[in-house]
Amino acid sequence: MKTRDIAEAARRASRSLAGLDRTTKDSILASIAEALENNRDVIFKANREDLAQAEKDNLETPLLKRLGFQEDKLAEVVEGLKALTSLEDPVGRQLDATELDEGLELYKVSCPIGVIGMIFESRPDALVQIAGLSLKSGNAVVLKGGSEASRTNRALFTVISQAAEQAGAPQGWIGLLETRDQITDLLGMDDLIDLLIPRGSNEFVRYIMENSHIPVMGHADGICHIYVHHDADVDQAVKIILDSKTQYVAVCNALETLLVHRDIAPQLLPVLAQALDQAKVEIRGDSNVRHTIPTAKAAVDQDWSTEYLDYILAIKTVDSLDQAIDHINTYGSGHTDAILTQDAQASKRFFAQVDSSSVLWNCSTRFADGFRYGLGAEVGISTGKLHARGPVGLQGLMTYKWQLYGQGQIVGDYSGGGKTYTHRPIEHQKPF
Amino acid sequence: MKTRDIAEAARRASRSLAGLDRTTKDSILASIAEALENNRDVIFKANREDLAQAEKDNLETPLLKRLGFQEDKLAEVVEGLKALTSLEDPVGRQLDATELDEGLELYKVSCPIGVIGMIFESRPDALVQIAGLSLKSGNAVVLKGGSEASRTNRALFTVISQAAEQAGAPQGWIGLLETRDQITDLLGMDDLIDLLIPRGSNEFVRYIMENSHIPVMGHADGICHIYVHHDADVDQAVKIILDSKTQYVAVCNALETLLVHRDIAPQLLPVLAQALDQAKVEIRGDSNVRHTIPTAKAAVDQDWSTEYLDYILAIKTVDSLDQAIDHINTYGSGHTDAILTQDAQASKRFFAQVDSSSVLWNCSTRFADGFRYGLGAEVGISTGKLHARGPVGLQGLMTYKWQLYGQGQIVGDYSGGGKTYTHRPIEHQKPF
Repeated sequence: MKTRDIAEAARRASRSLAGLDRTTKDSILASIAEALENNRDVIFKANREDLAQAEKDNLETPLLKRLGFQEDKLAEVVEGLKALTSLEDPVGRQLDATELDEGLELYKVSCPIGVIGMIFESRPDALVQIAGLSLKSGNAVVLKGGSEASRTNRALFTVISQAAEQAGAPQGWIGLLETRDQITDLLGMDDLIDLLIPRGSNEFVRYIMENSHIPVMGHADGICHIYVHHDADVDQAVKIILDSKTQYVAVCNALETLLVHRDIAPQLLPVLAQALDQAKVEIRGDSNVRHTIPTAKAAVDQDWSTEYLDYILAIKTVDSLDQAIDHINTYGSGHTDAILTQDAQASKRFFAQVDSSSVLWNCSTRFADGFRYGLGAEVGISTGKLHARGPVGLQGLMTYKWQLYGQGQIVGDYSGGGKTYTHRPIEHQKPF
Repeated sequence: MKTRDIAEAARRASRSLAGLDRTTKDSILASIAEALENNRDVIFKANREDLAQAEKDNLETPLLKRLGFQEDKLAEVVEGLKALTSLEDPVGRQLDATELDEGLELYKVSCPIGVIGMIFESRPDALVQIAGLSLKSGNAVVLKGGSEASRTNRALFTVISQAAEQAGAPQGWIGLLETRDQITDLLGMDDLIDLLIPRGSNEFVRYIMENSHIPVMGHADGICHIYVHHDADVDQAVKIILDSKTQYVAVCNALETLLVHRDIAPQLLPVLAQALDQAKVEIRGDSNVRHTIPTAKAAVDQDWSTEYLDYILAIKTVDSLDQAIDHINTYGSGHTDAILTQDAQASKRFFAQVDSSSVLWNCSTRFADGFRYGLGAEVGISTGKLHARGPVGLQGLMTYKWQLYGQGQIVGDYSGGGKTYTHRPIEHQKPF
């Protein structure tokens, strides 16, 4: 099928999806979960073929691990689909309500965005997760997975779309793209795709952002900072820095640059250097840092804007809170930044002026995550400032519309016609 | 000043603006209002020069009227600035709050977007309105007004920026661009401008949307529909159609296409034709319509996607509610669409499936407006589906950030370290 036909079918399907009630959507989700379990053999076989090919192609071990889709991953995605059925319907929530005049009632109501374009690398479990999130939120979805996982994705897609349509989902609500050219097609379809969600490497996400006029939700870099203020508790600081840097180095909310107030550097740095050394973290520091930690490498300008995703930490001393804030706003990526201090006033300034999606006080940057934030299923993390920001749950797939219920009212009666607006808040639920 | 210097100054100023408290912002707004009144002579003189030039250039009367900025307009903008000071601070609102664990509290808090790029045609009063909205919402702003109003804009800008900075606004929080080349510069500054708000003709807005990677809030077309279902009250329908079409023809929420169910066409169309004729509205109809209204012109395909902004109405008969919904989703602009019916079920389907920012039942399309919706000062109307949709008030200039208050917590303790998340809703206000 041509990309445009797939996207048009998704657009058509999105109209009916928007009107499906919760019971229908939840029973479709249950049918998908059941079908995935019933078709495990076909799916596992396709995945073994992908894995065999990947080994032939000498894919690295972490990539191979992400590519695998066997019993444990199946159990996980089935669990995820079941969890979705227990969530309230995100569609039709009354966000605001105002009486404009007697019998003229305005409601702001949540509704699906429309058609989501989801482009992800390897991980076939992402396909199931996104299919489920889209359906629950009433959005149609066009998916493109990594080519290494093509057989697994095809198998999962076939099972999901057949099961869903048999259970009442509109035809074409989920579409699968299978070639690289189709990504290029997709990026140009402003008229059919409402939102792109790319998941993958920084380069990959940046490529998507720079090559489409469709809004993109996601993040390229995660250059996260911790600033240690002069009055910080040294033991606590070391513990938090270590967790932020080493608890999982390959993720976007891991610490990359540490800023240390010069007055606390003499106390903090020697203890920290020892702890980092034990954790096998390489230090790249400015001249002040290297004065105290002679084993540290010299940091170059490039280090302040590098996301290592590795056992490397850049450390810089600063003269003031303002300099720290300025550094973060200059070199950071607007993802997650923390301040360690006993001083609520300093923290308040940091919270107000650091222009990042998450700002943290006296805790690890690793907390910035949809699951830990209690958002339920995570759609992604957005460093954009419009629509959704930071860890994004199901709400990130919703928009709203204004619904006005009248009884024949016309504007002429209110513009010089003698009637006036009441603009009273409405307490009751909307009529339907 | 170079465009980039202006934008960089605005970016720097935006950091301090984000931290200003309500009292300071309101006193700056009051100072601006006072300064505008004190400098009325300079402003009026600049405006008279713009008007004289415009008459020499043979500008059309409606444009001349929009260009004028004398006593009445001054009174209006001063009133607007004062109204802003009575509004709650939109910054720092607690949107959500969750305890992740004892002593680890997460708050979702409203904050400014950052730097707004505002490009508008003629109307100098828009400059004052946007300056005020930006300041109140803690955003820096870079403005480009119409060249016809260049002297007035320069005078207003000088008075506003001087008064604001004397009253405590950070230097450079408002910037003025004065040449067409500077618009091109601005459209390329993804790194400094967070949001573009264009106000002007469809072509102008579409040009901005197609020539920048910066998110744009606004609307190009307003192709609004009314669908008359077979059971509608004919007299009420005529009244609503007339108001929607003729109450003010040159605006984006005016009716452009009427869809009539074929079963009610024989009763509705003759009465309607007479009323439209009296109001001097030209009808362009399909063959069914012309059968009943012989004086109607023939509608061509182009008519279904034309925003007339004039005394012209396209009328089409449809066989069903579904066909009406389909027509609106195909030819509409996602702005405002209404259904006239006694049947709540039909209206419910229409509300769910019509993909527009405002959907209306039994009332005029002209109600879709920020003032009538009770949103206070209107930033604009957005037909985009992300961030803000439909009439947009001050909230459209806000985003949010996640603020996490800890006491030394690290993720390691929760990942196999024995601690678990509580994820309890928080009832109290955030610490600061």
